Amino acid sequence: MIKPSLPKGTRDFPAPIMKKRSYILQTIREVFELAGFQPLETPAMENLDTLTGKYGEEGDQLLFKILDNGDILERSRQARGNRELIGLLSEKALRYDLTIPFARYVVMHQQDLVFPFKRYQIQPVWRADRPQKGRYREFVQCDADIVGSKSLLNEAELVRIYTQIFTKLRIPGVSIRFNHRGLLKAFQEWAGISGPLTELTTAMDKLDKIGIVGVLGELERKGQGESSRDRVREFLSQEGDNESRIAYLKERFAFLPAGMQAIRDLEFLLDFDPPRAGEPELRLDLALARGLNYYTGTLFEVKSERSKVGSLGGGGRYDDLTGFFGVPNLSGVGISLGVDRIFDTLEDLDLFPPSAGMATRVLFLNLGEPYLKQAYRLVQSLREGSLPAELYPESIRMDKQIKYADRKGIPFVAILGEQEASEGRISIKDLRTGHQEILPLEKLAFFPF
Amino acid sequence: MIKPSLPKGTRDFPAPIMKKRSYILQTIREVFELAGFQPLETPAMENLDTLTGKYGEEGDQLLFKILDNGDILERSRQARGNRELIGLLSEKALRYDLTIPFARYVVMHQQDLVFPFKRYQIQPVWRADRPQKGRYREFVQCDADIVGSKSLLNEAELVRIYTQIFTKLRIPGVSIRFNHRGLLKAFQEWAGISGPLTELTTAMDKLDKIGIVGVLGELERKGQGESSRDRVREFLSQEGDNESRIAYLKERFAFLPAGMQAIRDLEFLLDFDPPRAGEPELRLDLALARGLNYYTGTLFEVKSERSKVGSLGGGGRYDDLTGFFGVPNLSGVGISLGVDRIFDTLEDLDLFPPSAGMATRVLFLNLGEPYLKQAYRLVQSLREGSLPAELYPESIRMDKQIKYADRKGIPFVAILGEQEASEGRISIKDLRTGHQEILPLEKLAFFPF
Repeated sequence: MIKPSLPKGTRDFPAPIMKKRSYILQTIREVFELAGFQPLETPAMENLDTLTGKYGEEGDQLLFKILDNGDILERSRQARGNRELIGLLSEKALRYDLTIPFARYVVMHQQDLVFPFKRYQIQPVWRADRPQKGRYREFVQCDADIVGSKSLLNEAELVRIYTQIFTKLRIPGVSIRFNHRGLLKAFQEWAGISGPLTELTTAMDKLDKIGIVGVLGELERKGQGESSRDRVREFLSQEGDNESRIAYLKERFAFLPAGMQAIRDLEFLLDFDPPRAGEPELRLDLALARGLNYYTGTLFEVKSERSKVGSLGGGGRYDDLTGFFGVPNLSGVGISLGVDRIFDTLEDLDLFPPSAGMATRVLFLNLGEPYLKQAYRLVQSLREGSLPAELYPESIRMDKQIKYADRKGIPFVAILGEQEASEGRISIKDLRTGHQEILPLEKLAFFPF
Repeated sequence: MIKPSLPKGTRDFPAPIMKKRSYILQTIREVFELAGFQPLETPAMENLDTLTGKYGEEGDQLLFKILDNGDILERSRQARGNRELIGLLSEKALRYDLTIPFARYVVMHQQDLVFPFKRYQIQPVWRADRPQKGRYREFVQCDADIVGSKSLLNEAELVRIYTQIFTKLRIPGVSIRFNHRGLLKAFQEWAGISGPLTELTTAMDKLDKIGIVGVLGELERKGQGESSRDRVREFLSQEGDNESRIAYLKERFAFLPAGMQAIRDLEFLLDFDPPRAGEPELRLDLALARGLNYYTGTLFEVKSERSKVGSLGGGGRYDDLTGFFGVPNLSGVGISLGVDRIFDTLEDLDLFPPSAGMATRVLFLNLGEPYLKQAYRLVQSLREGSLPAELYPESIRMDKQIKYADRKGIPFVAILGEQEASEGRISIKDLRTGHQEILPLEKLAFFPF
């Protein structure tokens, strides 16, 4: 008999974790819906030609492909290489993210959709990554996008959504960082850095890990000259508040058209809806350079100085969501939230509210046949008043039944035995304090369980 | 450019459908949790050896297998047959139901679980069935099980859960049917029907489709004699209410021990918690014979006479959930709900409450720069009062903005233009009636959107 196990990189979610995850997802969902975002779900499987070529060479290899049903032996004989074999054996794969399925959906329904189209999507994705601490092969992504509008109001809305979510979750030390691809292009031009922009931004992206000296070393190895590196050092060393950064940018990049437009966008975001007291900081982060082959305008990233787990969310504007599928120039802007990382942060900082783990509040002990129906009816009446209540299904020793309540974290037990029943009363015991009291049955509904 | 499409048998769920599905799932979830059932989620992928051999020969073929990553060409060369090839190329598959993953979970965590263990699980499953109307390759299952207790109170609880769910969903003409495997065994013995019990029950299961004459014909083809078929006819023709059926059973089967125990169980269920006025009927259905190779005691099925889509749920008691994984004799009882069929029934009978489709209630028109910040702040304040509200992101012609509201089903538009702003007022127009009124700004929070 094989001892059963889980595929590596996957997890079961038992009740206590499920409830905490629901708390996070409910908070997010509520904020999205109040802002007019509508839910969408897409199938776990997509056609392979929908997915391949969208995530780069590496991404293609990380897709979980589904083996075709039917006779594959004959087909497999024709393959001359590994890649050809995969193509012969599989025509579907599990989704790798929520963006490409969303783009596919938009293209399939472009005639019926109302633009600007605001959708949110919370579903698992699958990646055949090497599993490691905090990285899973199945994990939930959580995205909100607005497509079909170039207005910066959309960016402001998304910043507000981040603000509300992290304020409601009460995560301390959160900063919502933003930047602009146009600014990074202007910076590259000004610094005289050769090669594609992504080479520069890939190096910049490592700033947190390797520090400014490491970034400069990497640029030197890529052949960037000393004067360029000096300018990179200057750019990445800007201290002070948003205003002083904006002043610096205006001084350096105002003469470059891409730079000027980007600065205007950044200023709009800083000015339009600044955070109020107690809300996450909104910070212009010149080093922010994520996912540049995809994003074309504003860029976002959320961090908490109190979290050890890296960024809690990110996003940005893209000019061409659906170009892959033959519908060019559909601009949009989106954000995502890292549910696992938010979970770990709330757990580390002990920020889950007690109610996020709440289950049954009272267990009625089973004292056998004569009192069973009455106990059952009382349980039902409590449930009708929205109180989770249970009746122990077997008439076994009381201490064993109490142990069940104790192990399940049920705070109260209710006892309706011969004496209580004859007096029209019921005993309620608080297992946390040991305190026991006897109530008339008609007061049960008012007991503060 | 390939026009993107969906894999056959799969669906996208856009917002109106998502919201209606959430209404169903929320109703179910609430009832489960009030009864002390705790949520569980398991990964989409399970190891192939967890799943194979659990669903019969046909089931094994309907599993969606995941192609291993890495170099499969070399491995594929060794295969001499189709089945061997699958084994060489794949070690994981998508879950086929929620029962086997649940059993796998129980076995892996048996040391830590508190028994009786009550869990519910609502997740998609995948089957490579031939897609047809109402049958999908990805669909949500919704199960609640209690394992580790043989008490019939558990059955009573599950009947009550069905009762509450279908009462809350307001589906008319629902009957919760039940039967008992012990009774079917006694019946087989009494009727002198040879062969395995499943041969008899497979024929009986078709009663709805082919009628009693069809069932008898099938038994005749299987070689059952005339006197046996006469007894089948008698058994399946029992009319009248539950009491008269019980009386019939007592007369016929009381002398067979399996029969007597089954009759006692059935009587307990009828007596312990009979339906109240307006609740679904609880009906002893002697022809009910579902999934018998799995169930060993009570059997359940929910039907609505008003629904065209077949059974809305089913379940039963099993004696050996985890025997597959080397942990024998763990008894349990479970029910499932057919979410797609419940959806179709509610849709056909127009029973979704209007709020199940509710989205944004008011769109603030975008009248350009000078009024934008104020409009945005008003939108935010409405959202803080839990009203879904939007501000149109672009300052385009008003009629186009109103068209957006109209197409999205947003009932109200709010207009804050030059005149309104100067007077500290705002216009609200009800798009359904055309009625427009002007409010002082401070009254906005009290407007009945």
